[in-house]
Amino acid sequence: MIKQYLLSPGPTPIPNEVALAMSETMIHHRTPQFNKIFDEARDGLKKLFGTKNDVLMLASSGTGAMEASVANLFSHGDRVLVINGGKFGERWLNISNAYGLNPIEMKVEWGQAVKVADVEKQLKANPDIQGVMIQASETSTTVLHPVKEIAKLTQNGPLFLVDGVTAVGVVALPLDDWGIDVLVSGSQKALMLPPGLGFIALSDRAWEKTQKAKLPRFYFDLNLERKNQQKGSGAFTPAVSLIFGLRASLQMIEREGLQNVYARHDRLCRATRAGATALGLKLLAAEDPSPAATGIYLPNGIDADAVLEYLRDKMNVTLAEGQDQLKGKAIRIAHIGYMGAFDVITAIAALEMALRKFGAEIPFGHGVAAAQEVLMEALA
Amino acid sequence: MIKQYLLSPGPTPIPNEVALAMSETMIHHRTPQFNKIFDEARDGLKKLFGTKNDVLMLASSGTGAMEASVANLFSHGDRVLVINGGKFGERWLNISNAYGLNPIEMKVEWGQAVKVADVEKQLKANPDIQGVMIQASETSTTVLHPVKEIAKLTQNGPLFLVDGVTAVGVVALPLDDWGIDVLVSGSQKALMLPPGLGFIALSDRAWEKTQKAKLPRFYFDLNLERKNQQKGSGAFTPAVSLIFGLRASLQMIEREGLQNVYARHDRLCRATRAGATALGLKLLAAEDPSPAATGIYLPNGIDADAVLEYLRDKMNVTLAEGQDQLKGKAIRIAHIGYMGAFDVITAIAALEMALRKFGAEIPFGHGVAAAQEVLMEALA
Repeated sequence: MIKQYLLSPGPTPIPNEVALAMSETMIHHRTPQFNKIFDEARDGLKKLFGTKNDVLMLASSGTGAMEASVANLFSHGDRVLVINGGKFGERWLNISNAYGLNPIEMKVEWGQAVKVADVEKQLKANPDIQGVMIQASETSTTVLHPVKEIAKLTQNGPLFLVDGVTAVGVVALPLDDWGIDVLVSGSQKALMLPPGLGFIALSDRAWEKTQKAKLPRFYFDLNLERKNQQKGSGAFTPAVSLIFGLRASLQMIEREGLQNVYARHDRLCRATRAGATALGLKLLAAEDPSPAATGIYLPNGIDADAVLEYLRDKMNVTLAEGQDQLKGKAIRIAHIGYMGAFDVITAIAALEMALRKFGAEIPFGHGVAAAQEVLMEALA
Repeated sequence: MIKQYLLSPGPTPIPNEVALAMSETMIHHRTPQFNKIFDEARDGLKKLFGTKNDVLMLASSGTGAMEASVANLFSHGDRVLVINGGKFGERWLNISNAYGLNPIEMKVEWGQAVKVADVEKQLKANPDIQGVMIQASETSTTVLHPVKEIAKLTQNGPLFLVDGVTAVGVVALPLDDWGIDVLVSGSQKALMLPPGLGFIALSDRAWEKTQKAKLPRFYFDLNLERKNQQKGSGAFTPAVSLIFGLRASLQMIEREGLQNVYARHDRLCRATRAGATALGLKLLAAEDPSPAATGIYLPNGIDADAVLEYLRDKMNVTLAEGQDQLKGKAIRIAHIGYMGAFDVITAIAALEMALRKFGAEIPFGHGVAAAQEVLMEALA
């Protein structure tokens, strides 16, 4: 078994079309040739983020874009509400603390989405809150938070900052329509690129707020970036090849059709859940699943990390681990980005085989069959 | 469903490692730099073909290498025995006729291997036979012919010409040990390369015979090629990038281990057969299956070509068609080259789904489960 099957929630598989685009001859980033490519990528990103405003490209990971939003929008001691329902919720908290903000941590049980009413209560109880931070898709727990509903609560109040790293290109998150104030993402997820690009879009009122924000920033100075990017390049050296690839991946998404892309992620997610459920396995996100990845509890007494290691080293199938409190208990199957029906089939079939190897009584093909039933939907 | 799954018996999927090697900077083919790469590929091919003699690389498809063997070994009117059990057996016949040989056609029922006793009879009845031509793996019927046994019959008699296009790198065919006189192959099969290279190895007595052979040849003059290739390049311009890739693919095979490569092909073949059988489908090669591909009859009343079109256009899964008398009746699933366990799972799951779409009563997951049982063998 020599062939590798990558089913992790980032980095995700790179389509050849994107890989070839990234192999184009290197060009200088202060040239009309690069400006044209950059502008085309800018246009594509605006459609993807659902905004007339700029979507800035940063040579950073998604975390860099998260940090940029904090550094550009707040001042020391500002009160923010951090919805923390997993590893990435925690990250908003860590960034807020690192910059001397005054965060209220709203803990959400892992595997659950935050309740809109609870957010509303917090906002009412703390009228000094300047910003609300959330993940659209919390990758660590494979949960989708109710972004649209929370955006309604923040319309005339605090800024609403959404980490869309595993959500942009997976579910609709129209920044302008929903009134999201900050939407960040990264390249190595639904955009089918290697890691290395962060994206960030701001609402009009968020841009206004940057004028008053006093936190220090230099590399991530978004006003400086905006000024430069509107002229067709970055303030600092942009990641040229990745932007070649970005233009190609945005073209692929456009060709497939954004609604079809969302529908595909949703279908692959439901197929994966059906497969796991048919095997008698419990899902991490019982309700409100993220279409980016599916967390699955393994049977009691089976070490999930050992199963994952076996899958990776003996079967060449890379899935993702449970983090922190889920370590050794759960696995995550990704279906984000350049994934098709038979990647889900591969994941479920491989899981069936690995679980039997670890002593579980697994009837081969049962999970696969349940997934197939869902995947048939796509076949006209 | 945007992602493509290529499961055809050539071209086969290209590993990134090979694709990257082929993207190396173009160099001139009369340089020490190229000679070194060429020589390393030569050495690797000798191991693969099981011979101390030269394995020549031709800028041609496998058919070019077949033609080269005829043009270099025979004279007008020579009597040859052509074992014709499928499309590629027919090809030996067509080449023989095109060159004015005097072939005896030995028809073998499609789906069956030739009987060694029948070959023996023909050889005894026609002592003027100068050459015997066969496919090791007849790709059109997915049958493996008994090369080793027939080679025993030809030791002191006619030359034995073996088309190994879908057999070299799939099953052992040691030219020197078995006393094969000609073994040809192509790049786009087990060697995991794009089409464009033909390979040909000759026994000592075949090389001697070239001196007496009077058929015309220029581009495929094997003595001229041998003289040049021993000096590290082709007589005419060699396919430089493909040879870069060939060196890489031979290294991959060496790393996996040739015996492991053979075992993998055998296992994937048995898994595919088990999957199809569990679905109640009849196999094309009831006995003597080729580990390169598996031919499967579809249920009566279902148009196999329509199913294949559906698989390709709606499900992005490319399998191969039944040819000639099998057209519309059978399909072929390839498991040759850069294939792993989950390619077989993909093929069987996709077939289950497509067959149901065409009205067959297919219990999802049954074929997959049978394949999984076989694939488990590889898991220590």
